[in-house]
Amino acid sequence: MGVKKRLIKQRIRIVQFGCGPVGCAIARLASTKANIEIVGAIDLVNVGEDLGEIANINRKLGVLISSDPDAVLSQTKPDVVLLATSSSLQKIYPQLERITRAGSNVVSTCEELAYPYKKQPELAAAVDRLARGYQVTILGTGVNPGFLMDIWPLFMTGVCQEVKQIRAVRIQDASHRRLPFQKKIGAGKTVQDFDELVKAGTLKHVGLPESIAMIAAGLDWELDDIVEIIEPIIAESEVKSSYITVKPGQVAGVKQVGRGLKHDRELITLEFQAYIGAEESCDVVYVTGTPNMEVGIKGGTHGDIATAAIVINSIPRVLAAPPGLTTMKDLPVVCALPKA
Amino acid sequence: MGVKKRLIKQRIRIVQFGCGPVGCAIARLASTKANIEIVGAIDLVNVGEDLGEIANINRKLGVLISSDPDAVLSQTKPDVVLLATSSSLQKIYPQLERITRAGSNVVSTCEELAYPYKKQPELAAAVDRLARGYQVTILGTGVNPGFLMDIWPLFMTGVCQEVKQIRAVRIQDASHRRLPFQKKIGAGKTVQDFDELVKAGTLKHVGLPESIAMIAAGLDWELDDIVEIIEPIIAESEVKSSYITVKPGQVAGVKQVGRGLKHDRELITLEFQAYIGAEESCDVVYVTGTPNMEVGIKGGTHGDIATAAIVINSIPRVLAAPPGLTTMKDLPVVCALPKA
Repeated sequence: MGVKKRLIKQRIRIVQFGCGPVGCAIARLASTKANIEIVGAIDLVNVGEDLGEIANINRKLGVLISSDPDAVLSQTKPDVVLLATSSSLQKIYPQLERITRAGSNVVSTCEELAYPYKKQPELAAAVDRLARGYQVTILGTGVNPGFLMDIWPLFMTGVCQEVKQIRAVRIQDASHRRLPFQKKIGAGKTVQDFDELVKAGTLKHVGLPESIAMIAAGLDWELDDIVEIIEPIIAESEVKSSYITVKPGQVAGVKQVGRGLKHDRELITLEFQAYIGAEESCDVVYVTGTPNMEVGIKGGTHGDIATAAIVINSIPRVLAAPPGLTTMKDLPVVCALPKA
Repeated sequence: MGVKKRLIKQRIRIVQFGCGPVGCAIARLASTKANIEIVGAIDLVNVGEDLGEIANINRKLGVLISSDPDAVLSQTKPDVVLLATSSSLQKIYPQLERITRAGSNVVSTCEELAYPYKKQPELAAAVDRLARGYQVTILGTGVNPGFLMDIWPLFMTGVCQEVKQIRAVRIQDASHRRLPFQKKIGAGKTVQDFDELVKAGTLKHVGLPESIAMIAAGLDWELDDIVEIIEPIIAESEVKSSYITVKPGQVAGVKQVGRGLKHDRELITLEFQAYIGAEESCDVVYVTGTPNMEVGIKGGTHGDIATAAIVINSIPRVLAAPPGLTTMKDLPVVCALPKA
């Protein structure tokens, strides 16, 4: 707590690495926090533009987007880099090398970083070595993975005497999300086009296996297998958002289910649905055990708002954590940072 | 994680200190966990009896209840003492002295221990010195305080960009609780008798100020004041449990509200109701902020089950924590321990 308190009273200097929609949402939130100072921004597009303008902050920040990570990192020496560039741990690994070499801690939205030990154990070990070597801490977090389908169910099991099964369901009415999200889930496509997007790997929500592995580790369960299915949700009648109209028989969105299996029993089920025309968004955790539990977030959780929040709110915990790769399971509870 | 893993693979040796209903519920759960060994039991009643029989474990444990804490502690040298003797930090302080002197860590259901820094700062500092002096860790936890009205709301704020107000509501249909609980909340009394119990201090649920202080600390809020009210819930028509019949005009139970204030604004509201005839038990957290959140546990949480669970589930976190007084806010997320 000592370190955290000290750092929270000083201004924490951050660099935003990746200034797409999620990176901009993070930067926008960071700009409202009195104890955070944005000192740099890195991206390959909008180079030379002020981050304040690109991120709709309504004022110039005096921080110009640069395409040269090494220059930004060595000139600004940030406490933390907020990395929002890719879902793939393989892809961000060279970025992690650069950031840690510059001595900065990392909070990243990279889905595969949220709990990489099971699916990519060698890469996870390499990231951990990197962080320990440069005496910094690296965390992957976000709304999902990072909260709704892993640490939240785990948190609720704290009051359970025994847990036999965990199921988490996330249903999102995609009508209220931004257009790239609606496109990403295949809304308005034919089933054939949907299947091609799945084959190409561009449609998939990344993170279910990571969440399943985190839950299993938290409950000390050894799983035999983790499997995933992805299928279209077909519109039965016409549904629409302000961007897209989906005709009957077309794809309204996606259903993705991850399962954690042991001896062919399904111990963990994570069910993710995002489509136009969903009756009501919701997030629910079901625990089968002693006692059974059903815990729900009314109206669900807005992904972009929550992801930006948890990235920013995690910063003090990451600064106070021992060096290495850490996860939401290993950190003290992340709380909302004060505005001023 | 290294320490935790090591300790979880060994058997953790515990002493149950306080073998009333809650202590027995804890011991009963402990007896089902393969990695926990009950090595001693301390109480002033049922001395010489086997804990297995007193706690309805349906088998003898070979652990006889002793009224001599020093003898039990020095003979058994437990890793952790599970202390369930009193709600009052003042009252358990001498017990903490004995336990820490024997070199044992402590997980306690003492409500005032859950977050004592605000209401009893000197005593909190003394407990912390005690723990550091003997290089052990002390935690106060339970369902409430310890979970529903403090660390759970704090946990949910992790996905909030800004928090303006927190409200937690716990409504318990007391019909399904044990008779001492129903008596404790004043069920079946006249309003006059209720008021006398309140004056005598025997009716009060202890812990709301501690929970409010924990929330405020987690959100970095400086409160001006913490206030509490307690009042009877009067039966409008006859209601009954299997033990008690409440006639119209009599007391069905209790309503207690704690408020955390700043500049006369109510930032934190904790509302606890327990009465016979409640329509449905529930636990709900409301966050006012960005976004607003409403999170509910369907059917509520059974207090005794949850308290025993969180005490046992906290053990590995306490063993892995640095020496000193710790709180749920400072520990990594507590997850259910496996059975075998």
